[in-house]
Amino acid sequence: MGIVLGANRYGKAESRVVRVVRDTPRHVIRDLTVTTLLTGDFAATHTDGDNRDVLPTDTQKNTAFAWAKEHGVTSPEDYALALGDRLLAATPAATAARVLVDEHAWERIDVDGTGHDHAFVRRGQGVRTVEVVVGDDWPSVVSGLRDLVVLKTTGSEFRGFLVDEYTTLPEADDRILATSLTAGWRWTGGEEPDGGWDAAYDRVRALLLGTFATSYSKALQQTLFAMGAAVLEAEPAIVEVSFSAPNKHHHLVDLAPFGIENDGEVFVAADRPYGLIEATVVRDDT
Amino acid sequence: MGIVLGANRYGKAESRVVRVVRDTPRHVIRDLTVTTLLTGDFAATHTDGDNRDVLPTDTQKNTAFAWAKEHGVTSPEDYALALGDRLLAATPAATAARVLVDEHAWERIDVDGTGHDHAFVRRGQGVRTVEVVVGDDWPSVVSGLRDLVVLKTTGSEFRGFLVDEYTTLPEADDRILATSLTAGWRWTGGEEPDGGWDAAYDRVRALLLGTFATSYSKALQQTLFAMGAAVLEAEPAIVEVSFSAPNKHHHLVDLAPFGIENDGEVFVAADRPYGLIEATVVRDDT
Amino acid sequence: MGIVLGANRYGKAESRVVRVVRDTPRHVIRDLTVTTLLTGDFAATHTDGDNRDVLPTDTQKNTAFAWAKEHGVTSPEDYALALGDRLLAATPAATAARVLVDEHAWERIDVDGTGHDHAFVRRGQGVRTVEVVVGDDWPSVVSGLRDLVVLKTTGSEFRGFLVDEYTTLPEADDRILATSLTAGWRWTGGEEPDGGWDAAYDRVRALLLGTFATSYSKALQQTLFAMGAAVLEAEPAIVEVSFSAPNKHHHLVDLAPFGIENDGEVFVAADRPYGLIEATVVRDDT
Amino acid sequence: MGIVLGANRYGKAESRVVRVVRDTPRHVIRDLTVTTLLTGDFAATHTDGDNRDVLPTDTQKNTAFAWAKEHGVTSPEDYALALGDRLLAATPAATAARVLVDEHAWERIDVDGTGHDHAFVRRGQGVRTVEVVVGDDWPSVVSGLRDLVVLKTTGSEFRGFLVDEYTTLPEADDRILATSLTAGWRWTGGEEPDGGWDAAYDRVRALLLGTFATSYSKALQQTLFAMGAAVLEAEPAIVEVSFSAPNKHHHLVDLAPFGIENDGEVFVAADRPYGLIEATVVRDDT
Repeated sequence: MGIVLGANRYGKAESRVVRVVRDTPRHVIRDLTVTTLLTGDFAATHTDGDNRDVLPTDTQKNTAFAWAKEHGVTSPEDYALALGDRLLAATPAATAARVLVDEHAWERIDVDGTGHDHAFVRRGQGVRTVEVVVGDDWPSVVSGLRDLVVLKTTGSEFRGFLVDEYTTLPEADDRILATSLTAGWRWTGGEEPDGGWDAAYDRVRALLLGTFATSYSKALQQTLFAMGAAVLEAEPAIVEVSFSAPNKHHHLVDLAPFGIENDGEVFVAADRPYGLIEATVVRDDT
Repeated sequence: MGIVLGANRYGKAESRVVRVVRDTPRHVIRDLTVTTLLTGDFAATHTDGDNRDVLPTDTQKNTAFAWAKEHGVTSPEDYALALGDRLLAATPAATAARVLVDEHAWERIDVDGTGHDHAFVRRGQGVRTVEVVVGDDWPSVVSGLRDLVVLKTTGSEFRGFLVDEYTTLPEADDRILATSLTAGWRWTGGEEPDGGWDAAYDRVRALLLGTFATSYSKALQQTLFAMGAAVLEAEPAIVEVSFSAPNKHHHLVDLAPFGIENDGEVFVAADRPYGLIEATVVRDDT
Repeated sequence: MGIVLGANRYGKAESRVVRVVRDTPRHVIRDLTVTTLLTGDFAATHTDGDNRDVLPTDTQKNTAFAWAKEHGVTSPEDYALALGDRLLAATPAATAARVLVDEHAWERIDVDGTGHDHAFVRRGQGVRTVEVVVGDDWPSVVSGLRDLVVLKTTGSEFRGFLVDEYTTLPEADDRILATSLTAGWRWTGGEEPDGGWDAAYDRVRALLLGTFATSYSKALQQTLFAMGAAVLEAEPAIVEVSFSAPNKHHHLVDLAPFGIENDGEVFVAADRPYGLIEATVVRDDT
Repeated sequence: MGIVLGANRYGKAESRVVRVVRDTPRHVIRDLTVTTLLTGDFAATHTDGDNRDVLPTDTQKNTAFAWAKEHGVTSPEDYALALGDRLLAATPAATAARVLVDEHAWERIDVDGTGHDHAFVRRGQGVRTVEVVVGDDWPSVVSGLRDLVVLKTTGSEFRGFLVDEYTTLPEADDRILATSLTAGWRWTGGEEPDGGWDAAYDRVRALLLGTFATSYSKALQQTLFAMGAAVLEAEPAIVEVSFSAPNKHHHLVDLAPFGIENDGEVFVAADRPYGLIEATVVRDDT
C-alpha cells in the first residue's frame, strides 16, 4: 500500500486589484480582492518537484491585473468568468479554474447635493462576493455577499425549544435579532441575468434586507429560510441560496440590582460565543 | 533613591452598550463601545494591594449600562459627560475621569422607499468617536471619527520633494490619494454646540469629506491642513482639529511587459508599508 | 416546483472553555475554544418556526462547560468525542454532532530553571485543532494544527515552471520559503492512538516540522507532500493528511540603485497576495 | 486670529524588513516591522504643498532596507539608533527622528535534539519592541515587549474595594489573573547596557515573568508595580518602566443549576469588556 496525492489545488490569493475607468471626467472605480485557484493533474510537482505543468501563482496574479485592463471589469461576475477562462486556457494540465472576487463598494462623496466625479468614500454594509468555476461541466456562478450586519429591535422571539437538564435559557417573547450575514446565490449556468450582474445583485440584496425587516421571526432559521425563499420566488434563474449566519447575541442587562427596570432598552452586545446557523434553500425538483 | 509610582490610570475598556429607545413604534438605536478610565491617588493599591479607594472596573461597567437607561443617550458626547461626572463623584480618590465612546452607526433598512421602524443595517463609513475628560479644570470634549476610508482617483500629485541617494520614487503628476481617516476636533469647554452634538458631528464630517473631494492635493499633508482649516473657519466653537492619516498607497501596475498601456487605470492597493501623516491644525492666538 | 430546505446545521461557536486541574499544587490548564454543530431533521424550525426539536445553542454552550468538569479534558480529542456523544443523545432529531476544538497552548513560566506550579505564559507556535463527528457511521477524528509559522532561509528553489506571455517571475535558485501551516490528520475510527492523543499530537507535529526543515524544496507542493508522506509512514493509524498552506512571499529587495549587493540577505515580507497551496496526502488503497 | 499648523510628524509605517545573516551555514534571522517618523519644520508642505524639505516616506522605507544591510541588525535597538541618525542627517528640516521596531522572534526547528541551521518556527510569546528618538537632546531608548500573555491559576485575590450602589462584584479570594502585557523600559541615555541589548532584553523579560509568577497578587496594579520595581532594582541603567495591561477576565462558570460544584475548575475566558491598568514605575529622585 503506497502513499499518493489526493485532492489538491493551488493559486494566488487576495490580489488587490483596483480598476479605474476614466474615459470621461466622471470616473468609475471597481475595487476587488481576487483569488484564483487551479485544479487538475499537478501530481508531478508534489511528488517530484517537477514544475513544468505549473503556471506560477505570480503569473496568475499578473493575469488578474492585466485582465482588469484587457477585459475590463463591468461586473465582478463578468471579470471572474473571463479571468477563469484565460487561466484555464493558459494551463493545459488544469481541468478547472476557480475565481473568487470580493468587491469593496465605494460611493461618491456628496458635494452640494451631488456625487463628486472622482472622490469616493468606502461604503461599508457588507462585501459583494463572487465565486466562479470554469471547466468542462461549468461555468458555475455563485453571487453573494458577506459581513452584512443587520439587526431588529423587535419582531423576534425564541420559544418552545427542546429542554434538557442543561437548559437555563428562558423563553424570549421579544428579543433583539442580529446577524452578520454571509449569503450566496447560485445561478443557472453562467449566463448574465436580466438587467446584468450589477442590477441582479442590487435586487437580491434588497430582497434579503427587506425580508429580514418585514418577517416576524420565531427563530433565526425561519428568517433565513424566508429570505432564501423570497429570492428563489423572485429570481427564476437562481437555483439555490445558502446562508451562514452568526446569531450575534444581545443580552438584556439586569438592572434590577440598581432598582432600574429594563424593558428591552439596554443590552450588552456579546462577541463570543455566538450561535451559528447554516442553511441552504433550494428548488424542489420532484 | 527609592522606587515610586509614576503616572497611572485604570478602568474598564470596551463595554458594548446598546441602547434602544422604544417609546414609539419607530425605534431608535445607539450602539456604543464605552471605555472609562480614572486618574487620581491610587498609590496604595499599587504599593500595598490596598483597594479601599478603588472603584472596581466591574462597577464602572455596571454604571455605564445603568447610565444608558438612567441618563439616556441623546448623543455620545452627552452620555460620556454624564457618565464621567458620575464616576468622578463615586470615587473620592479620583481627580479626573476619562470616557471614550465609539458609536457604530446603523441606518434603517429601506422597505418600499421608506426606512423601516425597527430593522437596521450597519452603516460602515467610519466610526464616530468621543473622548471626554471631567475633573477640576475640565470638562474637555473631543468629538471625532476613525476609519473613514476615502479615495480620489485624480486631483492629486506629489512632486518637488527632497532627494537623496536612497530616493527611487519618481514624481507623480496624477496619482490615487487614499487614506483611512482618524480625526478629532476639540470643543471650547464642554458646552453643547449649536444644533446639538449630533448635528455638529454631521456638519464637521460633511465638511471634512467635501474638502477632501474638492481640494487639489500636492501632498496628503496639504489636504489634511485644508480639511482642518475648513472646520476651524466654519465652527467657531472648535479650537483644534487633529488628524492621523495613513497614506494608503495605490501603486500603478506595470503592464508594459504584456504590451499593455496603463494610463492610470489599473492599480494594486498595498497593505504595508503605508505613509503615516499626523498633523494638528489650531487657531493662532498671537 | 416548490421551495424546500437543503443542507443545514446549527450550533454554538467559539465558547471559550478554560479548565484548570488543581487536585495537586501543580496545576494543569487546558484552554479551549469550542464549537458544536448539529445536523439532522430540523426542517420545522426553518419552515414554521417550530422549535420543539431544537436544542438551543445556549444549552450546547452550557453542556460544553459542564462537560469540562463532568467528563474532564484529558485531551481535546477525548473531550470533543464525549461532548459530541452527549449532544447527539440529548437531541433526538440530530443525526450527527460535530465538535471543533482549538487548544491554545500554555507553558509554565520558568523560575530559577524550573517550571512554576501555577503561572503560565501563552506559547504561540500555532494552535492545536480537533474536529470530531459522531453519529451513525462515525466517529471521525481529525487532529491538526493551524497558524504554525515556519520559514527556511535556504534549501528552497522554484524553477522549470510553465511560462506564458504574462510570466515575469524569474527562476529562483535559492529563496526563502515560509508558510503559516494548517494541517489535519484523520485517524482510523475514533480510537485513541498509541500513547494517547497528546503524545500523538506531539509526534506528528515534530515530524511535520522536522520534514519541513530537512527536505530540500523544489516547490512548496513538494514539501507538503513530503511532510504528509512522512506522517503516513510513521503513523499507521492515520489514513489521510491534508494541508492548506499560504506561500508567504519574502521578496529579495533590490539594493542595486544604492550600490549595495544583496546576496540573499535583505527581504521584504509581503502580506498580500500570497500563494495558496492545498493538498491531501492519502494511502493508495489499490 | 488665523489658523496655523500645530504639532505634526510624518513617516513610513510598518516596513517588513527581514535580515538574514548567512556568512556561515548556521543562518541567523532578524524579522522586523519598522516605522520611522520625522518631526521638524514641515509647515510649507502643509500650508502650500511645497515639498522641498520633505524626505519622501518611500525614501525612508528604502533607507530602512538599505540600513539592514549597510549597518546590519545586531539588535533592534542598535539598528533603530543608526537608522534614526541617518534619517535625521538626510533631512535638514527635521529636528528629531523616531524609529519604532517590532521584532518577531523565531527559534530553530528541533531536529534530533539540535536546532536546525536554517529552518525556523515563529516563537510567539510576545513581540519585542524598541522605540528610539534621536535629535538634539537625545537619544532616547525605550526597550519593551507587547502581547506577552500570562496567567496564574491561583495566588490572586481582589478584596476590600470601594463599594457603591452600582457594585455587584463579589470579593474574590482566589481567582485567575491573566493579562496580555505591554511594557517598556527607558534606558539612561542611549548607551548599550552591560552584555548588550539582546542580553538585557532577555534579563528584563525573565524578571517580569518571574515576578509575575512568584508574587502574590491583591490587585493587578500591585503585581505590575512589583514587576516594575524588580526591574529597576536589578538594572541601574533603567530609569522607568511603564505598563499597559488588560485584565483579561476569567469568570467562574455557574454550574450549580446542573448540580455540579465548580471549585475554581471551569472558567469562561471573556473577550470584552476587560479591565485596563496603566502604570509607570520610576525612581524617586528626591
